[in-house]
Amino acid sequence: MLFEPLSIASMTLPNRLVLPAMVTRLSGEDGVVNDDIRARYTRFSRGGVGLVVVEAMAVHSAKSGPLLRISDDAFKPGLTDLAQRCHDAGPGKVVPQIIHFLKVARSGWRQTVDMLSLEEIDGIVDAYGRAALRARECGFDGVELHMAHAYTLSSFLSRLNARKDSYGGASLENRLRLPLRVVAEVRARVGKDFPVGVRFVGEECIRNGYTVLDAAPIAVRLARAGVDYVSLSAGGKFEDARHIEGEPLYPYTGYSGDRCMPGSNYPDGANLAIPEAVRRAVRAAGLSTPIIAAGKIGSLALAAQVLEQGQGDLVGMARALLADPDLPKKWQSGREEAVVRCLYGNVCKALDENFKRVDCTLWPKKTGQAPESDDPTPPVWPAAGPSFGAELKEGRVLLRWLAATDNEGMYGYQVLRAEGDGLLLHHASVRAASLRYEDARIIGGTRYRYAVRPYDLAGNRGPASPTVTVDVPEA
Amino acid sequence: MLFEPLSIASMTLPNRLVLPAMVTRLSGEDGVVNDDIRARYTRFSRGGVGLVVVEAMAVHSAKSGPLLRISDDAFKPGLTDLAQRCHDAGPGKVVPQIIHFLKVARSGWRQTVDMLSLEEIDGIVDAYGRAALRARECGFDGVELHMAHAYTLSSFLSRLNARKDSYGGASLENRLRLPLRVVAEVRARVGKDFPVGVRFVGEECIRNGYTVLDAAPIAVRLARAGVDYVSLSAGGKFEDARHIEGEPLYPYTGYSGDRCMPGSNYPDGANLAIPEAVRRAVRAAGLSTPIIAAGKIGSLALAAQVLEQGQGDLVGMARALLADPDLPKKWQSGREEAVVRCLYGNVCKALDENFKRVDCTLWPKKTGQAPESDDPTPPVWPAAGPSFGAELKEGRVLLRWLAATDNEGMYGYQVLRAEGDGLLLHHASVRAASLRYEDARIIGGTRYRYAVRPYDLAGNRGPASPTVTVDVPEA
Repeated sequence: MLFEPLSIASMTLPNRLVLPAMVTRLSGEDGVVNDDIRARYTRFSRGGVGLVVVEAMAVHSAKSGPLLRISDDAFKPGLTDLAQRCHDAGPGKVVPQIIHFLKVARSGWRQTVDMLSLEEIDGIVDAYGRAALRARECGFDGVELHMAHAYTLSSFLSRLNARKDSYGGASLENRLRLPLRVVAEVRARVGKDFPVGVRFVGEECIRNGYTVLDAAPIAVRLARAGVDYVSLSAGGKFEDARHIEGEPLYPYTGYSGDRCMPGSNYPDGANLAIPEAVRRAVRAAGLSTPIIAAGKIGSLALAAQVLEQGQGDLVGMARALLADPDLPKKWQSGREEAVVRCLYGNVCKALDENFKRVDCTLWPKKTGQAPESDDPTPPVWPAAGPSFGAELKEGRVLLRWLAATDNEGMYGYQVLRAEGDGLLLHHASVRAASLRYEDARIIGGTRYRYAVRPYDLAGNRGPASPTVTVDVPEA
Repeated sequence: MLFEPLSIASMTLPNRLVLPAMVTRLSGEDGVVNDDIRARYTRFSRGGVGLVVVEAMAVHSAKSGPLLRISDDAFKPGLTDLAQRCHDAGPGKVVPQIIHFLKVARSGWRQTVDMLSLEEIDGIVDAYGRAALRARECGFDGVELHMAHAYTLSSFLSRLNARKDSYGGASLENRLRLPLRVVAEVRARVGKDFPVGVRFVGEECIRNGYTVLDAAPIAVRLARAGVDYVSLSAGGKFEDARHIEGEPLYPYTGYSGDRCMPGSNYPDGANLAIPEAVRRAVRAAGLSTPIIAAGKIGSLALAAQVLEQGQGDLVGMARALLADPDLPKKWQSGREEAVVRCLYGNVCKALDENFKRVDCTLWPKKTGQAPESDDPTPPVWPAAGPSFGAELKEGRVLLRWLAATDNEGMYGYQVLRAEGDGLLLHHASVRAASLRYEDARIIGGTRYRYAVRPYDLAGNRGPASPTVTVDVPEA
């Protein structure tokens, strides 16, 4: 089912895998598409993902850090070229995410929706309409309206929207008023058949924030208003952001940021209850609008489950595709084993928080992109074997092994773990330079078994090491 | 299944309903059981709940606000009397929750686990052991060790435990070291057959906090160490508490407090994924330890689902039982309709946050307890009917009606709502003094139907009003 096409208005996606919009900090402050942006997105397209959502680009010209722009016709040549190159690179469709944001200052001050005049609200509607039309004119396959996280339209949807007028927090219909005006204006500009999606958060994950109890009717209302797909995120708000002296407030730095990009301490598919509840409500209202689920979905089994159990119609994966843009091709050709698996260590998130270029820490150093290789030869262990050993130390299991070698270049090691008599399952990925791993999530009274497998730049797995067993005592 | 007995070590609960420990602020600063405490807990026992967990009582003598104590033999007469009275009042079993906490100051400073010396740690172990033995000597049926929320043992289990030694945050086994020492000491003191339960959080709900990925092995480890039941909560941490100038830091005031006691903006059973995942891991480890699920469980259908779907073996309900302590009796006798349903408006939580006596806002004013009545006569509408009407206003539906009357005393009104052609379902409860309700969770393009039913002090429902229909336009 993951590799069955899906039609959304006038576009037909070749499969159900989606790259959600992800900040890269690759663009300059001029907002113009540059070489780095072109390289990043064509790489995703080449990997075979069904839909690439290009990172948020501003519908207006307000000051910000590095950020793409679609706020003026001057940006159209670069964007047109980007859309064309992505189409040339792979079978997937490409839509830009378009964003409006409010002002933030280095003092910690930020503009909130209750400070906006009615004229400014009209201006937001107009800017979205014009930007969406530009997206169409640039040859994109659709457009995604950013109503998620800490940005303007999300702040209107928020339960903390403090406006007292008809755009205000006192009721769901009022909180929806501006988002619905934007949808209507965009639709009027781009025409009936051009796909218009929306991304919003299904749970704000902040004190007094909304949950799926509001997200479900919000999605129904947006779908009724003619939105062609609904993409669900979580958290990522200003309200719990950590202020760093002298830096503008940045979302994703608080707990709601953890929930937005669930790290290695979260279970896989940590946010799936959100799209599941929202989709159920949308279907109960008689609407067939596709729902995009996301949040630490990194395995074929979990992605397939999302579709089978009706937790979503499409599977969004940002970090997993950053780690390995070829994941779609590998999954489709039955080579899941060759996928370089995201660690969910959130180094990418930390880079963004520190205003640095967002690369994947797994990539070979200084390449700035995921390796591409068709080499079929897997790595090999030294003739005498990996000397794989385990030691129990201070409540952790410390694993060590000798380096494998590869004809082309080593990439890393996969650590497998079993509990008791269970199966050996993927447990962690380790960079090639590191020949050790510490497992701190063990408990007394359990037998653990470990193995390690080397992989090369193409993701080819070498043979598994011998298995080592560690009995953790109860004392 | 809810009303089948369950044996936990030496105690047999008459049913699967549990009152989790809930702060009351009824005790004095002397920590001695008083009339208000006796009245509160015997009321719960009379209502038929299977297990009453008496609010946290300190194992040590550190300064605090109003808080019960079990830190000295001097407290035993009061506690012995309380246990006896609860046993006399109903069929349920009674266990005290015993707590150790660290220091908090009005300046905002608080003591953290990394400030504790090894001698102080030994003292905590000893204090728990002595307190648990006192619980047994007082005639309680078991004892519950408080390892949840913002308190000492929870802070050791926390992923934010900052100790560098063998009690420290670097590994799960180290974080478990003190909690496991406490379990061992308590077991040595109380003997093999005395039920020892643990309550801890399945998800910390704070930045960098742990999730069920840690909670599952923690529960397995505690169960292996001989804990007789595991009760799961969420959040309630100091790390995101809101500091009020001049007041000591108080947990439950931040987002993690919202998640601890999910309010009306959360879906029913908001935390059930936690006990479900933990129970699965405990069973997979070959252990039969009963798991208590909790978090906005207020209906018979949902409570039954918890047991049927294996989300828990017991159902904890604090606010629902505060609103109506007779809920167990009413459910068991097929009178769910007569239950006074918690609004989850969290007035009780706000009272606690403001250092006030925790009563239910639904209770008749100044009574300080839930009404008790066997009166069988339901309320009646005025002869001309309730004049029930609905008006669409500023994105809300405003409902109004005329007062019903009752032979004994009106208690409130239940608002029922249906979407489209759906069934009329419980939507909200309204106090008797208020003859109106505003529904702010409506969206355009939907037909809503409403009805309202009066209920008296015994929970007897009068006839439903005529149904009114509201079509919310899309514009």
